[in-house]
Amino acid sequence: MQHGEIVTDPVLVEVLRGDIVESVHRGAVAVVDAAGTPVLSLGDVERPVFPRSAVKAIQALPLVESGAADAYGFGDKELALACASHNGEPAHAALAAAMLARAGLDGAALECGTHWPGQFEATLALARNGGEPSDLHNNCSGKHAGFICTCTHLGVDHRGYIAAGHRSQELVREAMQSVTGARHDQANSAIDGCSIPTYAVPLNDLALGFARMTTGEGFSPERARAAKRLMAACMAEPFYVAGTGRADTRLMSAAPGRVFVKIGAEGVFCAALPELGLGIALKSLDGGERAADVIIAALLARLVRPTDGDLADRLTEMAHPPVRSRKGVPVGTLRPTAALG
Amino acid sequence: MQHGEIVTDPVLVEVLRGDIVESVHRGAVAVVDAAGTPVLSLGDVERPVFPRSAVKAIQALPLVESGAADAYGFGDKELALACASHNGEPAHAALAAAMLARAGLDGAALECGTHWPGQFEATLALARNGGEPSDLHNNCSGKHAGFICTCTHLGVDHRGYIAAGHRSQELVREAMQSVTGARHDQANSAIDGCSIPTYAVPLNDLALGFARMTTGEGFSPERARAAKRLMAACMAEPFYVAGTGRADTRLMSAAPGRVFVKIGAEGVFCAALPELGLGIALKSLDGGERAADVIIAALLARLVRPTDGDLADRLTEMAHPPVRSRKGVPVGTLRPTAALG
Repeated sequence: MQHGEIVTDPVLVEVLRGDIVESVHRGAVAVVDAAGTPVLSLGDVERPVFPRSAVKAIQALPLVESGAADAYGFGDKELALACASHNGEPAHAALAAAMLARAGLDGAALECGTHWPGQFEATLALARNGGEPSDLHNNCSGKHAGFICTCTHLGVDHRGYIAAGHRSQELVREAMQSVTGARHDQANSAIDGCSIPTYAVPLNDLALGFARMTTGEGFSPERARAAKRLMAACMAEPFYVAGTGRADTRLMSAAPGRVFVKIGAEGVFCAALPELGLGIALKSLDGGERAADVIIAALLARLVRPTDGDLADRLTEMAHPPVRSRKGVPVGTLRPTAALG
Repeated sequence: MQHGEIVTDPVLVEVLRGDIVESVHRGAVAVVDAAGTPVLSLGDVERPVFPRSAVKAIQALPLVESGAADAYGFGDKELALACASHNGEPAHAALAAAMLARAGLDGAALECGTHWPGQFEATLALARNGGEPSDLHNNCSGKHAGFICTCTHLGVDHRGYIAAGHRSQELVREAMQSVTGARHDQANSAIDGCSIPTYAVPLNDLALGFARMTTGEGFSPERARAAKRLMAACMAEPFYVAGTGRADTRLMSAAPGRVFVKIGAEGVFCAALPELGLGIALKSLDGGERAADVIIAALLARLVRPTDGDLADRLTEMAHPPVRSRKGVPVGTLRPTAALG
């Protein structure tokens, strides 16, 4: 990566305290259609970006395509959880355990690592009850349950499924490469927070991948069906994709079936607008999640405004969250810059 | 603030996953001596920045100068806590309560707002014991206890001490204005997280203020003594300035009595090197604390290297913290860029 490329990304979000700008966030945005035609480009959309968890719907394709999802009777909730970065709320952890139980396994099969629930209230409740977190509370436990179920259905030993050389990750890599059209190999890989490989891919290719996921263009009929089923499951059960108060859940709940969004760590979002046939990928350059939340809301508002002003207004409101004092009093605001239109 | 000024700040920190840059942080740095002569300037050091909690040592001057600290028998620990953004660990909350008890008051007098302890382990312990946080756990409770004790000692009603028009905040504003030489008025003010006014001041003026705090140059003898006493208290009791694992505590513990540092919210640090007579102020432009931690460590390493290579090496190591997976395995690193020297 060239330093010169980094510096071209514009300021997309301002953080105001009173009426003075306190902090700013830069970022890059790619919006393309399924033919790869750019609809909107801000900043450097050809620089490789680790999508992290934003591509979980693509990573879940083998779960459906292998027949595992049907064999284990997974419905929308299970498929949404397989695409999720969830809060570790009780319902999330319980559903991940139930998915593994269908394969005759339990949380001990997970290799994603343990952390306390992402939702603070869930952490407090667990601590107050004398509990400890397990791998089931890991925000990636649904995705990993999906990996494991794919293995057991295919008759592959699931142990070590997080390694790049395991059949599980070979299937994931094939899906990622074919959907985005970008190379996925040792040279652009690193290790994700949940210990599986992650690959740095240009935002343009990620956006193209999600335009294809929502339209099925360029896919085999089987893949097109699997992609639409996963996207539909997430839009039908947005709580299971993230959880209480989270941007993914709020944005998908604002327009049921019409907006797909998925956050990734370090300020990434991938998204799709099925009605418009568009795919979206963005990164807050400093990795700031608060900025990514504002960028995706402002961007979706801009894209849907010509066809749905009411939805655009609600999204615009979500793009201006308040900054509060410790007493909960609003003392400032976040806001998108003019670059986001 | 002009948009054009913001964009000049250089990339100061890179976040690597594997050997690929995943995220970057820009920032500005001012290092000056007590005459105001610049030693190092990176980015726009004339743009006003809210210093937030980084100026608590200046805000604590009235506590010492009024005679309240002596009247209530405050030693290094109490003065360090008055300058602190602490973790809300049991020792922090208990000392804040003890300070208020000297004035015949308790935590109910605090007007800073309640939040769970900043240290996750302290939050877990509180929840496991069936406890709830109070204003004493607020990271600013020591500063507010200092404000209240100053009022009671001066015979001023402490109620409403957080308001800009209260005698308490007038004393704070006079100290801030006189030490930094920058204006502090309605036009550059907003409300801090703990509900008191905060004023946007150029980094150059903040750095000058801390060069004066550590040298006493340009101060009355009384203020010079108060400033040195507060800085010495923080350096003698760095646990009470922040707490377990925090950058302030680790940096001041690395070179007892030779390094003063204080973080502020939204990526700010103010610091001083008494031996070199230098003041430092910096801001991570996106407000990222992880970047501010790297910038201050790298900057201190650069400044002390000519006179203490061993200390510089230890500080340089602190400027390269690992990025870890959920299993605790290192999968990347943060690092300062060449701009930090």
